[in-house]
Amino acid sequence: MIFGVDYYPEQWEKKDWDEDLSIMKNMGLTSVRLAEFAWALMEPKEGKFDFSLFDEILEKIHRAGMTAILGTPTATFPPWLYKKHPEIVQISKEGILRTIGTRRQACFSSPAYRKATERIVTAMAKHFGNHPAVVGWQIDNEPGHEGSDLDYSHLALTSFRKWLKTKYKTVANCNKSWGSVFWGMMYNDWDEIPLPASHVASNFNPSMIQDYYRFQSDELISYLSLQANIVRKYSKGRPLTVNLYPSPFLPITDMHKLFGEFDYVSWDNYPVWGNQKDPFPHPLVSATQQYCRGLKNKAFTVMEQISGVQGHDTLGYLPPPGQIGLWLTQAITNGANQIYFFRYRTARFGQEQLCYGILDHGKKLTHKYFELQKKIQEIKEYAEDIADVPYPAEVAILHDIENARSYKHQPLSDGLKFSPVSFAQVGYDIEIATWFAGTNVLNANTHSLPARTEIDFKNYKVITLPLYTMFEDSVIQKLEAYVKEGGTLVLGYRAGIKDQNHWMVEEPVPGRFREMAGVETYQFEAMGEGEKVSIRMGLFPLRGTKFCELLEPITAKPIAYYSDSRKFYKGKPAITLNQYGKGKVYYVGTSLSPETMVLFYRKVLLGAGVKFGFLGSTVEKQYRIGRKYNYEIIMNHSWKPTWAGLKRLQSFETRITKINKK
Amino acid sequence: MIFGVDYYPEQWEKKDWDEDLSIMKNMGLTSVRLAEFAWALMEPKEGKFDFSLFDEILEKIHRAGMTAILGTPTATFPPWLYKKHPEIVQISKEGILRTIGTRRQACFSSPAYRKATERIVTAMAKHFGNHPAVVGWQIDNEPGHEGSDLDYSHLALTSFRKWLKTKYKTVANCNKSWGSVFWGMMYNDWDEIPLPASHVASNFNPSMIQDYYRFQSDELISYLSLQANIVRKYSKGRPLTVNLYPSPFLPITDMHKLFGEFDYVSWDNYPVWGNQKDPFPHPLVSATQQYCRGLKNKAFTVMEQISGVQGHDTLGYLPPPGQIGLWLTQAITNGANQIYFFRYRTARFGQEQLCYGILDHGKKLTHKYFELQKKIQEIKEYAEDIADVPYPAEVAILHDIENARSYKHQPLSDGLKFSPVSFAQVGYDIEIATWFAGTNVLNANTHSLPARTEIDFKNYKVITLPLYTMFEDSVIQKLEAYVKEGGTLVLGYRAGIKDQNHWMVEEPVPGRFREMAGVETYQFEAMGEGEKVSIRMGLFPLRGTKFCELLEPITAKPIAYYSDSRKFYKGKPAITLNQYGKGKVYYVGTSLSPETMVLFYRKVLLGAGVKFGFLGSTVEKQYRIGRKYNYEIIMNHSWKPTWAGLKRLQSFETRITKINKK
Amino acid sequence: MIFGVDYYPEQWEKKDWDEDLSIMKNMGLTSVRLAEFAWALMEPKEGKFDFSLFDEILEKIHRAGMTAILGTPTATFPPWLYKKHPEIVQISKEGILRTIGTRRQACFSSPAYRKATERIVTAMAKHFGNHPAVVGWQIDNEPGHEGSDLDYSHLALTSFRKWLKTKYKTVANCNKSWGSVFWGMMYNDWDEIPLPASHVASNFNPSMIQDYYRFQSDELISYLSLQANIVRKYSKGRPLTVNLYPSPFLPITDMHKLFGEFDYVSWDNYPVWGNQKDPFPHPLVSATQQYCRGLKNKAFTVMEQISGVQGHDTLGYLPPPGQIGLWLTQAITNGANQIYFFRYRTARFGQEQLCYGILDHGKKLTHKYFELQKKIQEIKEYAEDIADVPYPAEVAILHDIENARSYKHQPLSDGLKFSPVSFAQVGYDIEIATWFAGTNVLNANTHSLPARTEIDFKNYKVITLPLYTMFEDSVIQKLEAYVKEGGTLVLGYRAGIKDQNHWMVEEPVPGRFREMAGVETYQFEAMGEGEKVSIRMGLFPLRGTKFCELLEPITAKPIAYYSDSRKFYKGKPAITLNQYGKGKVYYVGTSLSPETMVLFYRKVLLGAGVKFGFLGSTVEKQYRIGRKYNYEIIMNHSWKPTWAGLKRLQSFETRITKINKK
Repeated sequence: MIFGVDYYPEQWEKKDWDEDLSIMKNMGLTSVRLAEFAWALMEPKEGKFDFSLFDEILEKIHRAGMTAILGTPTATFPPWLYKKHPEIVQISKEGILRTIGTRRQACFSSPAYRKATERIVTAMAKHFGNHPAVVGWQIDNEPGHEGSDLDYSHLALTSFRKWLKTKYKTVANCNKSWGSVFWGMMYNDWDEIPLPASHVASNFNPSMIQDYYRFQSDELISYLSLQANIVRKYSKGRPLTVNLYPSPFLPITDMHKLFGEFDYVSWDNYPVWGNQKDPFPHPLVSATQQYCRGLKNKAFTVMEQISGVQGHDTLGYLPPPGQIGLWLTQAITNGANQIYFFRYRTARFGQEQLCYGILDHGKKLTHKYFELQKKIQEIKEYAEDIADVPYPAEVAILHDIENARSYKHQPLSDGLKFSPVSFAQVGYDIEIATWFAGTNVLNANTHSLPARTEIDFKNYKVITLPLYTMFEDSVIQKLEAYVKEGGTLVLGYRAGIKDQNHWMVEEPVPGRFREMAGVETYQFEAMGEGEKVSIRMGLFPLRGTKFCELLEPITAKPIAYYSDSRKFYKGKPAITLNQYGKGKVYYVGTSLSPETMVLFYRKVLLGAGVKFGFLGSTVEKQYRIGRKYNYEIIMNHSWKPTWAGLKRLQSFETRITKINKK
Repeated sequence: MIFGVDYYPEQWEKKDWDEDLSIMKNMGLTSVRLAEFAWALMEPKEGKFDFSLFDEILEKIHRAGMTAILGTPTATFPPWLYKKHPEIVQISKEGILRTIGTRRQACFSSPAYRKATERIVTAMAKHFGNHPAVVGWQIDNEPGHEGSDLDYSHLALTSFRKWLKTKYKTVANCNKSWGSVFWGMMYNDWDEIPLPASHVASNFNPSMIQDYYRFQSDELISYLSLQANIVRKYSKGRPLTVNLYPSPFLPITDMHKLFGEFDYVSWDNYPVWGNQKDPFPHPLVSATQQYCRGLKNKAFTVMEQISGVQGHDTLGYLPPPGQIGLWLTQAITNGANQIYFFRYRTARFGQEQLCYGILDHGKKLTHKYFELQKKIQEIKEYAEDIADVPYPAEVAILHDIENARSYKHQPLSDGLKFSPVSFAQVGYDIEIATWFAGTNVLNANTHSLPARTEIDFKNYKVITLPLYTMFEDSVIQKLEAYVKEGGTLVLGYRAGIKDQNHWMVEEPVPGRFREMAGVETYQFEAMGEGEKVSIRMGLFPLRGTKFCELLEPITAKPIAYYSDSRKFYKGKPAITLNQYGKGKVYYVGTSLSPETMVLFYRKVLLGAGVKFGFLGSTVEKQYRIGRKYNYEIIMNHSWKPTWAGLKRLQSFETRITKINKK
Repeated sequence: MIFGVDYYPEQWEKKDWDEDLSIMKNMGLTSVRLAEFAWALMEPKEGKFDFSLFDEILEKIHRAGMTAILGTPTATFPPWLYKKHPEIVQISKEGILRTIGTRRQACFSSPAYRKATERIVTAMAKHFGNHPAVVGWQIDNEPGHEGSDLDYSHLALTSFRKWLKTKYKTVANCNKSWGSVFWGMMYNDWDEIPLPASHVASNFNPSMIQDYYRFQSDELISYLSLQANIVRKYSKGRPLTVNLYPSPFLPITDMHKLFGEFDYVSWDNYPVWGNQKDPFPHPLVSATQQYCRGLKNKAFTVMEQISGVQGHDTLGYLPPPGQIGLWLTQAITNGANQIYFFRYRTARFGQEQLCYGILDHGKKLTHKYFELQKKIQEIKEYAEDIADVPYPAEVAILHDIENARSYKHQPLSDGLKFSPVSFAQVGYDIEIATWFAGTNVLNANTHSLPARTEIDFKNYKVITLPLYTMFEDSVIQKLEAYVKEGGTLVLGYRAGIKDQNHWMVEEPVPGRFREMAGVETYQFEAMGEGEKVSIRMGLFPLRGTKFCELLEPITAKPIAYYSDSRKFYKGKPAITLNQYGKGKVYYVGTSLSPETMVLFYRKVLLGAGVKFGFLGSTVEKQYRIGRKYNYEIIMNHSWKPTWAGLKRLQSFETRITKINKK
C-alpha cells in the first residue's frame, strides 16, 4: 500500500523543495507523481531538451527515500508546436477550435502531434527510464477529459474515412451496414462521408454515429499505445497506467480495451468538485471505484485523491471535518492499493489557483494535513493487509460501452438524458450507477464488470444487466449458460433489441432474451424528469421512472404490476420472473426509483441466497478479505451521528472490525 | 375517400413486397405514397438514372388494384451532388453549415441545386408520368421544415439583393422604406446590404427582416413551382400537392400564395411526437386541420397520419387504445378526403428507427393494425358521404402571414414568445390557435382563413381577427363593408397600427380600425409566461394574459373592466363593443386565457345568432353535410369516459349520428 | 440646471421641426442632444461631407433660444466603410462577426476605423465647433455597450500582443507574471499568445484574462481620447463627456481612468427596460447614480432619462402615473445637473420603434408630456438651488475595477454570478449595489467611489469595502491610516488575497488586511442561488448568502455567529469587530441578505455616529445642501400610499422640504 501526493516542483521555488519533501514524509507519504504538464519545460524549443529541473528533484526524492511516478506531458503541448502546426488542435462538435491556453487541445488524428509525442516521450523515457526513484509511469493525463474524446476536426474526418475503409472494405458494405438508403444518403465514395457534427434539427444516421464513437475510441487507444510502447522499451520493469478522469463512467472510449494495453487502472477521485452543493451520493462514488476495479478485475490506484475544496472559477460545498478521511477509507476498501493526494500545496496562479491541496497557498500546515496524517496512521495496517487481495463479491453488475455510446446519441427517453456539462450525455452511466446503488445500499459487495469480461459468470450468485439494448451474441450465450446452471439474471427494460450495426431486430422486445425472460412487450411510454408511475409488488409500493414497458408474460410470472390510476395500463405487469433451466431471470420493464429499487433487490438477493442488510441510507458496509484477518468496514457518510444496527457511528466515522480467519 | 399508407419498398427486401401489399389491402388501404427520399437510388451518379426498383413495385401495386402518389425526392440530395457543389447547402442563422447526412440541407437560391432538381424531376416525370398506378404527385417533402425556411448562406444573400432590387428599383427607395436613417445605416449600393443573421445584442432593422422573410418565402415558392411546372408537363391529369410539416402554422412561407400553384393542400398530422408528455390539446389539432382546409377552402389530404409512437432519439407519451382511431375520425371530420398513414412498417435502421408505423420492426400484425382496420370499416360510409362536400361554418378566424412574420422577429411581449425548438418562434401561431380554440370548444364549426382570402365575408355571422397589427387597406375595406352590412367583427389588441413597410402609424391604437372599433388606447403592459390580470365582464371573472391595453372608448361601450387590485389600471375598460353600421365590433384589449375566452365567446355567439353548446373540455362536436345525410359528430378526447349532454361517451369514443336531410 | 431632450430631426420631416421645438419649449426644455447616429448622413461617401441637415436644425435651435449637445456619430459607421474594410468589425467571444445592420460593430483596434473616425470627427468639429448653439459634445454613444467592450477579432489579438510587449518587455517576464508554467503554457514569442476567447471546458489563465480586460479598457480609452483631442482643438470651451450605458456598473472599462480625459460624467438612466416585469429596486438606481457622481466626485448629466416604455422587440412593465416624474426627482437629488429625456417623439421605424418617447408615434401631446411638464415646473427651483453643490455624505462605499474584472472571469461562487444577458457577468456589480443598498435603505447619504480615488478618506465616518480581493498596496496604506486615526472600515469576505498579477498571496485570508481586521479564515463554503445560512448577531437573526467564511479571530471580537443547524460550522464566528488604532474594522465573512444587511449596518452607523433612519422599504430619504436652503427629500417608490414616519405619502409622491440654513 502506497500513500503519495501529486507534486509540481516547477511551480515553486527550489529553496522550498527539501522542506516540501520533509513535510510529505512526516505526513506518511512516500511517493510523488511528477511532470505530467511539463512538456514546455522539458522541450523548450523543438528538439532541445532540458530535464535538469526534474533531475534535481528526482535526486532529492531518491535521497529522501521516496519514489516517483512520472507522467508523460502530452495533455498540453508547447505553444511553439501549435505555431508550427496550427492544424494540430481539435474542433468541438459546435465548431469551437481548441486553441492553446487551456488543456486537452490535441487532435489524436494529427500526424504532427503523434510525431512530436514520439520525440518527447522517447527523450523522457530514455532520460528517466532507469532512474532508481522512478517506479512507474502515467501515460498522458486524463485523456478524453473535457469532451476531448470527441473531435470534429478535418484530420479526424480523414482518419475516420480510413477507419471505415478498413472496417467495411467497400462503400457498398458501409451503406448496407448503416442503412444509408434511409433518407437517400447512399455514398459513392469514402470522401463523400461527412462528420456527424452539429446539425440544426435532425440527427445523423445512428449507425454512423455509433461507428464514429468507435473510431474515436480506437484513435485514442492507438495514441496511448504508441506512448506505452516507447516507455516500455526504455523503462523496463516500471508498470504503466493511464489516469481516468473522474466522471461517472465514460461513454466514448472503450476503457476495457484500453487497459488491455496497460498494467493497472488508475483514476482521479473527486467526490465533490466545483460548484456542487453536495458531494455525489456515496453509492455513486463506490460505483465508480468498482467500475475502475472491474476493468482489469484487480487493485487500482487513485492517482488524484481529493484533499481540499476544488474548482476552476467557482467553488461550492465545504467538506466537514472527517469527510476527506472517510473518502480515503472508502477508496482503499473498494480496492485501491495506491493513493496519491491531489495536491501537495495549492497553486498560487494558473487555472487551478482554487484547487486546494493538502496545504493552502502558504506553507503553514493545515487541518487537512493533520486529519489525513492521522487517518493514514490509523488505516495503514488494514490497508496493507488487504492490498492486492481480490475484492470479494457474490453480485456483479455488467456495463457495456456499446450501449453507453448508443444511449449517448439516442437516449430513448428524456429520463435517460443527463448533461451536467454541455458536452456530456451520461444518462446511461447514471442508470447503471443507480442499479449498482441498489445492491450497494443493501451492503452486498458488488463487482462492476464490462459485459465482455473474460471472467466466469459462475463466480456470482446474481448478475444484473440494465440497458443492454445492443447485444452481442457471445454475451447472450454466456448468460444463457449461466442461468441454465442456476444463476440469477436481472434484466432491465429495452434488452436485446439492437444488433451491432445499430439495427433494431425483427423480434419483439426483449429480442434475443425473449426465451430466457419468458416475456414480450409491444407498448411502452418514455418519461422525463420528475415523472413517476405507481407500481405494486405484493404489499410493497414501487415507483417506475424514465421508461415503462407493458409486459406480456409468456412463460414468466408477473411479480409487480402498474397500479397508477392515471394510466390506462394500470394492472399490466411491470416486472416478471421466469424459471429458465436451473436459474431465474427477472425482467424489469421500468427504471425503479432508487428508494424502491432496494425493495425489489431485497427480493432478488433473498431468492439467490446473497447475504445483505440495510443499515440506513447514509451507512455503507463492505467486507474485505485480508492476508491476516478478514474485515467488516462500516462508514457513516453523514455529518450527523447515526445508528448502524446496534453500533453508534459518529459524524463521518469509519469503523473497521477485524474478524479472525477460521 | 382514399385510405392509404406511406411505403418505403427500398428499405425492405423484395421478397416481402407482395405480402406487404396484401397486408395493406386487408386493412382497407388502397393507395401508397412512394419515393420521396429516393433521389440517390434513382440517380446513383450524375445523369445516370435507374428507376427499376420503383418500376417493379409500381407494377405490383397496379396488379394489386392499388394506386400511388409519387414524391419528388428533393428533400435530400445524393452525396455526389454535394461533393461537386459544396456551396449547395444552407447555413443556419447561427452559422451551422447544413452538411449532408440529415435532411433539408439544400439552399433554394443555389443554381446548382435548381439545375439538378430540374434534371431529376424531368427524368422522373417523364418516366413515371403516365404510369396507370400513378394518381398524383407530392412535390418535395415538408419544404421549409426544421428551420429550412430560413437560409443565411451567401447564395441566399446574393439572391436577396436581387429580390430587393426588383422590389425597390433604387437603393434610395429601399433606404426610405426601411427607415435606414435609423442608426445611420444608409446603404449606397445593393452589395452593401448584409444578412440579418446572428447578432450579439441589438437586432437588425425590423423592416429589413420582414423583407428577408418575404424573400425567403418567394424563393421557396419559386423553387416548388419550378418542379410543379415540369411535372404538369409530363404527367398530365395528375393533381399536385405539397405536404406541409405538422407544426402549428408556418411563420415564414406564405402558404396561401404557395397553394395558388397547387391542386390541393396536404399536411402531416402528428398530434403527439417525440418526447411530448401529452398530445397537443384537441382544439389545436382541429385548428391546424382547419388552417389547411382554409388555404384553398376545400378538402385536403393528410399525407402522413400518425399510426404509432414517433420520435428521432427520444420518445414520450403512449396513446391509449382508441386514440389513433379518434385522430383519424377527427381528420376526416375536419375535411380530409385522403388519409395516408405514416408508415407501413417501422424502419429497422436510420434516423427514424423509433418512428413506429402500423407494423413494428417485424411483420407481425399489431394492435394498431387491427384498431385502424376496424376504424376504417366503421367510418367508411360516413367519410364517403361527406368527402368533398364543403365544410359548413358560420364563424371564421382570419390569420395573416405578414403578422406571423412580424411577431416572429418582434413579438412585443414575452407572452407572445414560444420556441419549442431553437429555430422556431411561433407565439403568433399559438395565439391564433387559442382564439380558434374559443369557438371550437363551444362546438361552433369554424373556418380558418388567410386574411387575404377571396371568400366573401358575408358567408359568416362572426369573424375574429386577433393580432392583426400589420394591416392591408383592402382587408380593412372589406371588413368595413362586412360590418356595415350587419357582420360581427372581433378585433384583438394591437390591431391596425403597422403599415406594410413595418412602420408604426401616427394614429393611436387601434390605428386604421379606430372608427370601426370606436375606441383608443395609449397605455399598455406586456406580460410574460405565467403572469395574469383579473378582469370582470358583468358577473363573469375573466383573465388577461400576454398584453393588457387600457382602453379609452370613444363611441364604443365597455363590456369588461380590469379588476386586478395589484394594478393601477383597475377599473379601466378591457373589452369594448361598438355599433358600426348594422354590425358590431368587439375590441379585446388583452389575450384572454383559454378558459375565460370561452365566456367571452358565448356572449359574442349569442349576440350574432350562432348556434353553439359547450359539452365539457374534452368533448368536441362538429356538424357536417353529406350527400345523403347530414351528420353530428361527437368525439371524446379523453381516456376517461364522460357525459356529452345526455350521451355517455366511452374512452376516446367517436359517435357519428346521421340526420335525415329535410 | 438644464432640462433637455434627445432629438432626431433626421427621422422626421422638415416641416415638423419648428413645431417640434415649440412643443419642447412649452414643456420647459431648453436643450437637445443631436447627431450621434448620423455618420452616414454627414459623410454619405468617403470624404464627401454634407452637414446641411444639422446646419438647418441648429439654426432653428439657436433662433428658438435653445442649445445643443452634439454627439460624434461613431457608434455605428456607414456601410461603405465596411465594404472597403471588412476587417473593421468586432468578433464576439463565441465567434459571431458583428456585421453592419445593428450597432456597436467597430473594432477599436482597427487602424481603418481610427483613421475614418479622425476624418469624420475632425470635419464635424471644424464645421460645428464654434456654432453658438453648440454648448458641448458627447463623444461616441454608450461605448462598450452590448458586449462591445470585449472584442476577439484578430486585430484585437495583434494589438493585445503589442500591449503585452509594452507592459512586460520580454516574454519571459510575461510568462513569470502569468505563471505560464501552469499546464505548461510557456510562450517563446509574442506571436504565440492566443486570444482568451471561447473554450470548451477549462478556462484560460486568469492572469492572462485579467490582462486582456485591462488591454481592452486601454484600447477603448485611447480610442475615445483620440476623438476628445480632436474636438477640444476645434471646439474650444465646450465641455466633453461620454454617456455610459445604463447597466449597473461596468466590469471591463476603467471608467475612473476614462473620465480623467473628460469634463464630466453622463449616463443613460432606464430604471425599467424591455421585458422587465418590474423596475430595478430603487436603491440600485441610486447606487448607479452615485457610481456616476463618484467617478469625478461632482455633478453629472443624465443624457438619456426614461420618459416612456422602452424595448427593442419585447416590452414589459408599464410605469403608473407619477413614476417617471419620481425618477426625474431621484436623478436630480442624486446629483444630476443636466437631464436629457429619451426621446422627443417615438420613432415610427427602425430597431427602436418600440422605444416610446415623450410623444408617441404621432404628434398628439401625451399624458407623459403633461406629467413631465408639471414636474419640471415644480422641481425647478429646488434643482437650481442644489445644482453643482457637492452631494453631502458621511459614508462611502469603494468599488474597484480590477476586482470587477476578476469576479467576471473567476466569480468564486455561483452566488456571485449574474448574467441578465449572455455577454454580461455582473455578480460583482450586484454585490456592490447590495452593500450600497444597506446604507441607502437606512437613508444615510452615501458616496460611491473608486478605490483608487484621490479623495481623502477622512471625509467619511464609515467606509465599506466589499469584495476587495485583489488589492493595491497604496489603497491598503491609505485605509490603514484612515482607521488608525479613528475611521470605521467595513471589510467584506475574501479581502486582500490577490496581488495585481492575479496571484493568491501566501498569507491566509484576509491576507494584507489580517492585522487591521485581527482575524483569519481557512475554511469557506460557496453557495448558489437561493441558498442561505442562518446567523445570529445578538438578538438579531441575519442570513448569509453566496459565501460563508469560518472566522478565527486573533485580536478581533466576534459579533455574529453562524447558527444554522444544517451546518457543521454552527457556532463559528461570521462577523468580527477589531479595534485598530483609534478606529474600528468590521470583517464580514459572508454576503448578508439585503433585508438583514440593514440590521448589521444599523450597528455600524450607530457605532460611528452617522445619522440614519429607516422609513420603510419603499421610501428613500436624502438630504441636500443648496445655495439658499438645505433640503430633505422623501420619495415613495411605491404605487401604494405609505407612511414615512408621521408623513403620509401618496403613490410615487416626492416631498421636498426646505430647511433654513442656520
